Amino acid sequence: MFNPVEKLKEFIRHPSVSTDSKFRDGMKGAQEFVSGLLGSLGFTVDVVRTDLHPIIFAQRGGDPSWPHVVIYGHYDVQPADPLNLWKTPAFEPTIIGNRIYGRGAADNKGPLMTNIAAVAQALEENPGLPLRITFLVEGEEEMGSPSFPKFLERYADKLREADFVFLSDTALPNEQQVVLTCGLRGLALFDVHVTGPKGDLHSGLHGGVLRNPIQALAEILATLHTPDGRVNVPGFYDGVLDVHPWERDELKKLGADEKAYAEFLGIDTFYPTPGFTPFESARFQPTLEFNGIGGGYQGEGTKTVIPSKAFAKISCRLVPNQEPDKIKALVMAAIRARTPAGVKVDFVDQHKGEAYVVVPPDRSNTPANQSPVLARAFRAADAAIAEVWGRPPLYLREGGSVPIIAEIKHKTGLDSVMFGLFLPEDNLHAPNESFNLDVMRKGTETTRRMLLALAQR
Amino acid sequence: MFNPVEKLKEFIRHPSVSTDSKFRDGMKGAQEFVSGLLGSLGFTVDVVRTDLHPIIFAQRGGDPSWPHVVIYGHYDVQPADPLNLWKTPAFEPTIIGNRIYGRGAADNKGPLMTNIAAVAQALEENPGLPLRITFLVEGEEEMGSPSFPKFLERYADKLREADFVFLSDTALPNEQQVVLTCGLRGLALFDVHVTGPKGDLHSGLHGGVLRNPIQALAEILATLHTPDGRVNVPGFYDGVLDVHPWERDELKKLGADEKAYAEFLGIDTFYPTPGFTPFESARFQPTLEFNGIGGGYQGEGTKTVIPSKAFAKISCRLVPNQEPDKIKALVMAAIRARTPAGVKVDFVDQHKGEAYVVVPPDRSNTPANQSPVLARAFRAADAAIAEVWGRPPLYLREGGSVPIIAEIKHKTGLDSVMFGLFLPEDNLHAPNESFNLDVMRKGTETTRRMLLALAQR
Repeated sequence: MFNPVEKLKEFIRHPSVSTDSKFRDGMKGAQEFVSGLLGSLGFTVDVVRTDLHPIIFAQRGGDPSWPHVVIYGHYDVQPADPLNLWKTPAFEPTIIGNRIYGRGAADNKGPLMTNIAAVAQALEENPGLPLRITFLVEGEEEMGSPSFPKFLERYADKLREADFVFLSDTALPNEQQVVLTCGLRGLALFDVHVTGPKGDLHSGLHGGVLRNPIQALAEILATLHTPDGRVNVPGFYDGVLDVHPWERDELKKLGADEKAYAEFLGIDTFYPTPGFTPFESARFQPTLEFNGIGGGYQGEGTKTVIPSKAFAKISCRLVPNQEPDKIKALVMAAIRARTPAGVKVDFVDQHKGEAYVVVPPDRSNTPANQSPVLARAFRAADAAIAEVWGRPPLYLREGGSVPIIAEIKHKTGLDSVMFGLFLPEDNLHAPNESFNLDVMRKGTETTRRMLLALAQR
Repeated sequence: MFNPVEKLKEFIRHPSVSTDSKFRDGMKGAQEFVSGLLGSLGFTVDVVRTDLHPIIFAQRGGDPSWPHVVIYGHYDVQPADPLNLWKTPAFEPTIIGNRIYGRGAADNKGPLMTNIAAVAQALEENPGLPLRITFLVEGEEEMGSPSFPKFLERYADKLREADFVFLSDTALPNEQQVVLTCGLRGLALFDVHVTGPKGDLHSGLHGGVLRNPIQALAEILATLHTPDGRVNVPGFYDGVLDVHPWERDELKKLGADEKAYAEFLGIDTFYPTPGFTPFESARFQPTLEFNGIGGGYQGEGTKTVIPSKAFAKISCRLVPNQEPDKIKALVMAAIRARTPAGVKVDFVDQHKGEAYVVVPPDRSNTPANQSPVLARAFRAADAAIAEVWGRPPLYLREGGSVPIIAEIKHKTGLDSVMFGLFLPEDNLHAPNESFNLDVMRKGTETTRRMLLALAQR
């Protein structure tokens, strides 16, 4: 008998931080754990080598007339630091109340295990289930999936045999209301480095003579937003997809409370894109954020230097139909044009990903060329959610990014059904990450029902 | 026979970083080294305990009618990091050509040893020298001399018995031209911390909703200067002393070359206060500099967070008659007034020091109440410099700060004769600090002649 919670504990114990080579063993352990688990469920497991972390490609074949679902997940996690802010050990799963704590509990080990458990139960119930299932589990999601494009080139033909992708790597707005995510933001990330004098200088002897790189950086960054909160880069909003009225209506049904959200964030004022509520802004509008900044002396006390260098880490969240490369070029050009005399700027390119949108069936603007199995999958998910959670899902775009979803669409034509399972209070990418075990239980039941319904013709 | 270079090597080998408690042994070693050395020259050494690092107060008494000079120096040094940028070990003195490398070689161990050597030679030549000499050597200069005010309270009476202070903790513009520094800038230092959400947030889920603290900090810092390079804080320039025409003339005599200076700094454009050359700006005008900035993720790659906090380290260099506390209050008020909605600012106060100016004799505006011994000291130094270096000194204010000089003036009435010995290429406060041994040799000879002349009546 498959025990999802015990399996999840075992999964979390592998410290699979993909961005840090110190966690090589944890990455290997997590990969072997998932591969072994899928093998034990009867899947033919192919561990696909890449330049960095392997991709697990596990198949349950069958009659070509059977529907074919690709279940996506990732076995890597974010770094756990700052470790001193964790109340329980980051890689020792700890159950407190109805929550399991540990790095990766929600992103993405818990949700992935939910779907594996659903498959295990469905196959236990009906070993001859007329459904083809492929698990696609990568180990580089938290670093921008650098090996994925090459993998896609090699596996595109196999993926084209499938009908759609199913995944649980998006959010649930609250425990009562499920969302089938029908849009994701894209990403464009790079660092900007400002260099002034060739070395750090004594701020007494030379202060007042030259432009301080921190000052120059601050002055540059300060130009990148308008006071009312739009991104102040020419062309940035070109091609941004209009929000359909049904999308705003759907969001209203969510009934999200601004006051509660402000309290949750710990802020007293929102700063959304003008013309949008905070909830709309995060889902329908692009951003330009500073994820980090550094330069000069950052220790205790003082050190009166004029530093040689300063830098900032910039990420843009993109919406359809912004092009990541074009956005990077526009922002970099704006920065170059606004760099004051006396300093130089350089850029370090980081990763990127396109935004994605899928229109669910029965919406007025459903494209005619949508796969009939995709429409069936949406309807099966809708019905299972209504049964298990007591209300039908909402169809909403979300602010986060899963760049490989857009890549899969471009390379194979496959759309995705995104069944969100993590809650705002799950602390993704932060200390004390956790996953709600009631959500896990209901999620498993939902996916199980959806898979069984999809197999029935 | 006193060998100044060997003694300096021994001095540098004590890693006396005052700001870091890991260097407790180095601090103790340096203090005991100086105390022992002065004791061996016949001084009565009083090691004055303070809350942190002791102050060495070493006296050579004599007839009350003899002139009395207080020679100031400090035995502490700046932190040596980043250590990987040092070409020789920071605390292992290494002679290459006519330079000795090591942390503190120029600031202030070399110049202090120069003056100790001069005293040693003068006393060797004339053991009955009719001159009272007091060494005042502190161990907290690089951390803002926090124990000095308390010490001054207790020792003000003893210091008032002296005629003037003599020190070598200022700069020499080049190897040919000595400067007797007649002004120092003051300091006002504090950190500003900006807090947004109560914890770091996922920039996908929440990006576009709230004000990013790094953005807010950049926007605040960007308001603190005008585009043409003045400090943009109301009242900042109130009370700034006008520059006397003789000061500009004296600076012109220096014949400093802007092109060579730009090359030395590694910049292509200066950014001085409008109306001042770069050389004037650093000496006669106040600044507001950012010495450090930090927030969010600063490691390799990316981490898509909206950080909870960001901070900057701010230091103002002040000129007479700006009041450090008033300047701090003005800048903090400006920052508070310019803090956008959605974030909070807090300040961490750091140290401060007043600016100082002394008018040398024979200038039209010499105050009538100047001590006659001070005037004799200036003339003796002027003559010794002309003899040893082949040209008379220039009288210039300097951009750096030695806050205790203004404090001594306020508490005891003593003015200072500042005989600068470190060169721009000495890399003070930076990796690969060094001291020019020709300067040391000539400096020793100059101070020796000055002391002997001062003793002759």
